[in-house]
Amino acid sequence: MKRYEELAELVAADIRSGQRLPGSRLPSIRTLTAQHGISPSTAFQAYYRLEEKGLVRARQRSGYFVTSAVALPAVPATLAAPAPAKVAAKVDISALVFTVLGAAQQRDIVPLGSALASPELFPLRRLAKSLTAGTRQAQPWESVQHLPQGSASLRQQIAQRYLALGMAQPADELVVTSGALEALNLCLSAVAQPGDLIAVESPGFYASLQALERLKMKALEIPAHPQHGMDLDALEQALKRHPVKACWCMTSFQNPTGASLSAERKQRLVALLAARQIPLIEDDVYGELYFGPQAPLPAKAYDQHGLVMHCSSFSKTLAPGYRVGWVAPGRFGERITQLKLMTTLGASLPAQAALSDYLQHGGYDKHLRRLRHTLESQQASLVAAIARYFPANIQLSQPGGGYFLWVEFAPGFDTLALHQQALAQGISIAPGPMFSARQSFSNCIRLNYGHPWDARMEAAMATLGTLAKNL
Amino acid sequence: MKRYEELAELVAADIRSGQRLPGSRLPSIRTLTAQHGISPSTAFQAYYRLEEKGLVRARQRSGYFVTSAVALPAVPATLAAPAPAKVAAKVDISALVFTVLGAAQQRDIVPLGSALASPELFPLRRLAKSLTAGTRQAQPWESVQHLPQGSASLRQQIAQRYLALGMAQPADELVVTSGALEALNLCLSAVAQPGDLIAVESPGFYASLQALERLKMKALEIPAHPQHGMDLDALEQALKRHPVKACWCMTSFQNPTGASLSAERKQRLVALLAARQIPLIEDDVYGELYFGPQAPLPAKAYDQHGLVMHCSSFSKTLAPGYRVGWVAPGRFGERITQLKLMTTLGASLPAQAALSDYLQHGGYDKHLRRLRHTLESQQASLVAAIARYFPANIQLSQPGGGYFLWVEFAPGFDTLALHQQALAQGISIAPGPMFSARQSFSNCIRLNYGHPWDARMEAAMATLGTLAKNL
Repeated sequence: MKRYEELAELVAADIRSGQRLPGSRLPSIRTLTAQHGISPSTAFQAYYRLEEKGLVRARQRSGYFVTSAVALPAVPATLAAPAPAKVAAKVDISALVFTVLGAAQQRDIVPLGSALASPELFPLRRLAKSLTAGTRQAQPWESVQHLPQGSASLRQQIAQRYLALGMAQPADELVVTSGALEALNLCLSAVAQPGDLIAVESPGFYASLQALERLKMKALEIPAHPQHGMDLDALEQALKRHPVKACWCMTSFQNPTGASLSAERKQRLVALLAARQIPLIEDDVYGELYFGPQAPLPAKAYDQHGLVMHCSSFSKTLAPGYRVGWVAPGRFGERITQLKLMTTLGASLPAQAALSDYLQHGGYDKHLRRLRHTLESQQASLVAAIARYFPANIQLSQPGGGYFLWVEFAPGFDTLALHQQALAQGISIAPGPMFSARQSFSNCIRLNYGHPWDARMEAAMATLGTLAKNL
Repeated sequence: MKRYEELAELVAADIRSGQRLPGSRLPSIRTLTAQHGISPSTAFQAYYRLEEKGLVRARQRSGYFVTSAVALPAVPATLAAPAPAKVAAKVDISALVFTVLGAAQQRDIVPLGSALASPELFPLRRLAKSLTAGTRQAQPWESVQHLPQGSASLRQQIAQRYLALGMAQPADELVVTSGALEALNLCLSAVAQPGDLIAVESPGFYASLQALERLKMKALEIPAHPQHGMDLDALEQALKRHPVKACWCMTSFQNPTGASLSAERKQRLVALLAARQIPLIEDDVYGELYFGPQAPLPAKAYDQHGLVMHCSSFSKTLAPGYRVGWVAPGRFGERITQLKLMTTLGASLPAQAALSDYLQHGGYDKHLRRLRHTLESQQASLVAAIARYFPANIQLSQPGGGYFLWVEFAPGFDTLALHQQALAQGISIAPGPMFSARQSFSNCIRLNYGHPWDARMEAAMATLGTLAKNL
């Protein structure tokens, strides 16, 4: 065994034994060389080795950290098995969602159940500057000329971001929307009718279930793995058996689990659907919040038939409250533009002008790099707190981006009761039944690490842990 | 006959003979006293008398003008007869609407067919100031706390405007939306299902028909008089015969005719529907653009059962492109708030902050007074041009506000052909079939007087007149 391998083994043993907690910082290269009398390059090699094994993770300019979920298996066995798809005759997302969302809006409640990251993570002052600059240049006639597709200059900026991913997406095909949520609703209306069957992930984003409920469509729930995303074997089986009209999938850093489809699985998803001419509504609002070295490509990158409608927004990455999203609609552009004209006509102009100016001059990529590091570090803190306070027999996902993770308690555990007890103590969590038309996942919760880690968070996690152990 | 009566008769004769054209300015009080050797009070009495008869109209600080449509009967006989309501099995608003709207967006086309007033009529610079001021004060957490009902301070400002009309409308019931169009769509979704029957005006706003088409509801077209609005006898008959789920009505300065329901008829409409517990979706986006001395009260003012959903916006009166509207939802507030949360989550914050600041400090009422005068004067110019250039056998509405009027040509006249010929000459008009699910009103057009009157307008009207005479 080489010197660096020995050192790697030592550190790995500390991690496995729990002496080094998930998310904790490892000794710097300088410390390591001093402690062990080795060269910096040996120390680096040891950490590279541990990184390869998935035990540690490097953060730019911050050093090495124990990987978040190493102490806890990331794969809940109950979800890994490709279960057959379930048809919900009628989608009925209950008052639960509204209760949880309502609680998350109150600042005196600890926002572990929130759907949003802390607004303090976003460059609101810099955006306000862009608002002034962008509106100063605005001409009166722009309010008319950009309807309904949205500001031409903003669409050009968005097209450039696709180009940076290697995707040629013409600006004049894009439709700017009132947030991604409107984009997703428009896509559904564009390709399906009341009564139609839509394949969705389970667990999945409740807003997709609510949209189906509102449009009188039916959810075909396809099991999704909390680490690897939608079960494509199950989807394939379901497509053979059911007349699926469209598929709605959050392909990267999914809400609620944080799961991502790998590049290969995205390709397979696109191919599976294309073989049957079924449109894919791709919800990619967290795609920019990746922790790895590379931006994940969306499924849209593999679309050869214009069947993928790629929906995203600036709400999760830059400007919450501005309500500016978009869709790259593939072959459904005309219908979506018409629907936009019929429903909200156009997105708000000042917000579009501000974002267009900010994307040109504001330093979006720099902001994103900072935001990703912050979220990754907050994930580490949350995972460490879970390890510290929660019962031992849980499993959790290990998202490579976004700001949600998924905790699965032992079978039979009642997270609705936990939710109520936690709320009584001023803590919000998002119980699993919010994320299924059949109200499954009653032993799971979604936790949000999009808020600065502080003593209040730590105390809330301790309280949650105690409540969970007593339930 | 008293002196002032003699004078009034003289002027009336000039008007009837065509010596004084609709919309033209009458001699000032000072000129009249000098010309006729009478006292100012006699001159005033003469004008009062003419005003009572509807022949002249006073404009604050501008003197007296010949009433717009006096030379042309305002009541098309074909529409005055209460025809039975017609059920459209399926609403299918064709590509026509998109063609007409598309043309109206091009600045080199004369916008007589546009749905919008000139953006130059709005205080965009002052609004940009409010955008800067309103956003400077904004706190990060506002982006969360105001979801989904919208900015509390903006809702307070809107509630104060209701109060000024004598209506007590609590701010915390209001829901801010992405323009009135979203409000109207939410209202429909809140009270009706696919397949349900909705009573609408005919002719009516195409967006209401498009919304029904999108939501798979059916339009029950109730004849509407181009001057007096929806035929309430026809509505009453229809309600007895059909299971109507809701009624959608533009109660003041209707699009496309400019018609308004009188206060008495608004009361009757509310009572008719309340007797059957049928909700009224009141579209009141032009209500602030009245030319008379008093703001017309909306039907909502007579609502005792929370059945009226009053929808309005700032798009027609202050801030086109900002996409901020609202609904006072009566008893349907909870459902509408939930639907808002499911569709676009919230309205754009910068626009809300700007409007809230503007309503407090920007001088909205002063702007509105100026805008009303401008529109009234532009209406007079349009009516004068119609009298000058159009065939004699037409009829037209005489709106007391807004910026649309309705021209009815002789039966059999083909306004779709006129539309095409006009477009080839760079002139847009809105042909009647846009405003009916059954594509009726093929001998009618809607004209927009929301744009500054200039030589290009005058020339376009001359061209239209020639085309119409040759058709």
